[in-house]
Amino acid sequence: MKAELITIGDEILIGQIIDTNSAWMAVELNQLGIGVAQITSVSDQPDHLIRALDEALQRADVLLLTGGLGPTRDDRTKKVLCEYFDSQLVLHEPTLEHINDLFFRKRGIPVNQLNRDQAMVPAICSVLMNLAGTAPGMWFEKEGKIIVSMPGVPFEMKYLMTNEVLPRLAKRSGRGKIFHKTVLTLGLSESYLAERLSDWEDQLPEHIHLAYLPDPGRIRLRFSAFGDDEQLLEEAVEAEIAKLHQFIPDSIYGYNHDTLAAVVARLLLKHKATLCTAESCTGGYIAHLLTSEPGSSAWYKGTVVAYSNEVKTNVLGLDPKIIAEHGAVSQQVVEQMAANVRTLLRCDYALATSGIAGPDGGTPEKPVGSVWIALATPEQTISKWFTFTNNRERNIIRSAQSALDMLRLVLLNTP
Amino acid sequence: MKAELITIGDEILIGQIIDTNSAWMAVELNQLGIGVAQITSVSDQPDHLIRALDEALQRADVLLLTGGLGPTRDDRTKKVLCEYFDSQLVLHEPTLEHINDLFFRKRGIPVNQLNRDQAMVPAICSVLMNLAGTAPGMWFEKEGKIIVSMPGVPFEMKYLMTNEVLPRLAKRSGRGKIFHKTVLTLGLSESYLAERLSDWEDQLPEHIHLAYLPDPGRIRLRFSAFGDDEQLLEEAVEAEIAKLHQFIPDSIYGYNHDTLAAVVARLLLKHKATLCTAESCTGGYIAHLLTSEPGSSAWYKGTVVAYSNEVKTNVLGLDPKIIAEHGAVSQQVVEQMAANVRTLLRCDYALATSGIAGPDGGTPEKPVGSVWIALATPEQTISKWFTFTNNRERNIIRSAQSALDMLRLVLLNTP
Repeated sequence: MKAELITIGDEILIGQIIDTNSAWMAVELNQLGIGVAQITSVSDQPDHLIRALDEALQRADVLLLTGGLGPTRDDRTKKVLCEYFDSQLVLHEPTLEHINDLFFRKRGIPVNQLNRDQAMVPAICSVLMNLAGTAPGMWFEKEGKIIVSMPGVPFEMKYLMTNEVLPRLAKRSGRGKIFHKTVLTLGLSESYLAERLSDWEDQLPEHIHLAYLPDPGRIRLRFSAFGDDEQLLEEAVEAEIAKLHQFIPDSIYGYNHDTLAAVVARLLLKHKATLCTAESCTGGYIAHLLTSEPGSSAWYKGTVVAYSNEVKTNVLGLDPKIIAEHGAVSQQVVEQMAANVRTLLRCDYALATSGIAGPDGGTPEKPVGSVWIALATPEQTISKWFTFTNNRERNIIRSAQSALDMLRLVLLNTP
Repeated sequence: MKAELITIGDEILIGQIIDTNSAWMAVELNQLGIGVAQITSVSDQPDHLIRALDEALQRADVLLLTGGLGPTRDDRTKKVLCEYFDSQLVLHEPTLEHINDLFFRKRGIPVNQLNRDQAMVPAICSVLMNLAGTAPGMWFEKEGKIIVSMPGVPFEMKYLMTNEVLPRLAKRSGRGKIFHKTVLTLGLSESYLAERLSDWEDQLPEHIHLAYLPDPGRIRLRFSAFGDDEQLLEEAVEAEIAKLHQFIPDSIYGYNHDTLAAVVARLLLKHKATLCTAESCTGGYIAHLLTSEPGSSAWYKGTVVAYSNEVKTNVLGLDPKIIAEHGAVSQQVVEQMAANVRTLLRCDYALATSGIAGPDGGTPEKPVGSVWIALATPEQTISKWFTFTNNRERNIIRSAQSALDMLRLVLLNTP
């Protein structure tokens, strides 16, 4: 069973809203083993919608439409569908009853003609009661194909999908399952990874597909397995992931929707350890990533962002002679930053960064993108030199990732 | 001129990523007066892409394709386009040179065959140099229609759109002139604004359009004026913006792509003043916003993120009795944080935040979303209480915005 999603309305086409509905629907459909063949956003012009329906019905078994069901003039989906299925509008009493209840009885708002019109539906459809709003969902069938129309308001669409559409589709499909799992890697380039994994990729079973999804500093590897038995699919993917681990053991930091900060958080909690940071070039971005995790106050104590040498000496207690001798971007300075902030904020671990984020400030020996990162642990202080890009935003992101990853690897190898 | 957007790759169809590229591209194209007729997401199957191209070319003059240009096997866009245009792959020397430079000369990473393959392009296309990555953009023309292929990585797509695609399309469209200007407002709701501005909107000249673009905490008002004389269009828009200022004088913080941090930076530079911060609930996000501005070390000295009471007392020198008596989220604590960090980091101005970002930690008197913000100036320390949402991410963003806006208004009114 194959599905297509069609979103209706100008908001998406002029870029006023980002289509978040489709990704949510795609995930839900995939979990039923129904793949999404295409996602299409069209305007509310009747001829445009009709052409999109015609084209999609040639390709897919199920069309899920969202949008264009509001009470105002620019919402024309219901009228178009009524004509498309050669039907006429009839009153759906339970929906009118529900609208009366929602407006008049609960809120004392009089029900006007526009509200009452929402209870009119094409005679040919099955109505899906929308208890999350006023516009009913509509389920049409034509020559063995299913067309469902829902409101575009995410809350109402999700209500109808969860309570009405997905349960019906689950009964109808039952043709095969899909299992997805994504492996998250850090610090490797896409081309390096592709070369390193080439032989292993060649031996992947036919029913397991692999996709490379690159981000700044990060490559996600998505496995998709197709078959009948979800348990077997999961086992087959896990077996391949176990092989993958042998090629790039240190570079895999998590799975699916893990963030690096969440992975580090779990390791800190496991070790009952606390963390603080002293940031120069990352300017508080590491702190932001860590404190974006709910509950971070249990393991994160804070940061000192030392954007001037004065703060490095006055607050972090760095030796001004060391800064003068080696420069602010140096191994000596970054190691002192880590060690001192660890003592100052009384934590088990401390990360420090010092680098040249750009666009200015580079020199021939230390070009833009040069970054020193240090980690102070209860045993020692270690540090590493990186050279990233000439883009300020990316240098900040990559520096923060590399710092957190340095801590992740140390915690992983700590008994 | 009409455009369609086609995104290629399974990530969107399985709901793994939300398509944010299309909304960005639609906004940019609309600003050139090029409407988007349809947005289509297709898989990386060659026949699927070819059918989408055929269908879209019947409707639109410009097709913008993103995705499927990586160095790996699942990236097939280039090969499909080469066949579609009956061309063959040839080496593009400047791209190979750029890849060599990026990998080998700058980072010492050897260039492999997969990298070199990225420099191969269909002979028939014009290459758009991608200085933000390795996969070049490709510009095709066929029977008066334009087809452009770009990487799907948002950073690279935006680089190519801004530097190559949009300037070329602007020259081609030439339907008359358009002048755009966006007014950035903070702290007002869309419905309040729509009601407040209703009469003024009614008197807007026919050739000036107004769009409301809401963000968390922020509404952007975009003016688009259509006509023949750009100078006159600009004057007409500026005249309306002058009227707008009288309705919401304090809420307009900037124009077009201004960030609030950049606006604050300009004001600090004008006053030859320096800033530091002490952050609790914002967890370094204010520091991150400020240090994302190039050259911020000229006016920003740093932050102390005090995520534990211990850091508040040990580093910021807060009186433990005051914390015990009033709680960490209190006017007394946030004012002391601002005043003390100002002294500690020796700055002219200091901002401090303390609040309950959520999801946990709320109480009946101080529910999740409660935030105290203080500003210490050379003359005094002021503070303000806010209640935001129950969403952690939005609370952090809104708190940081509100803090920076507090400083902006004080600097604006400082002689």
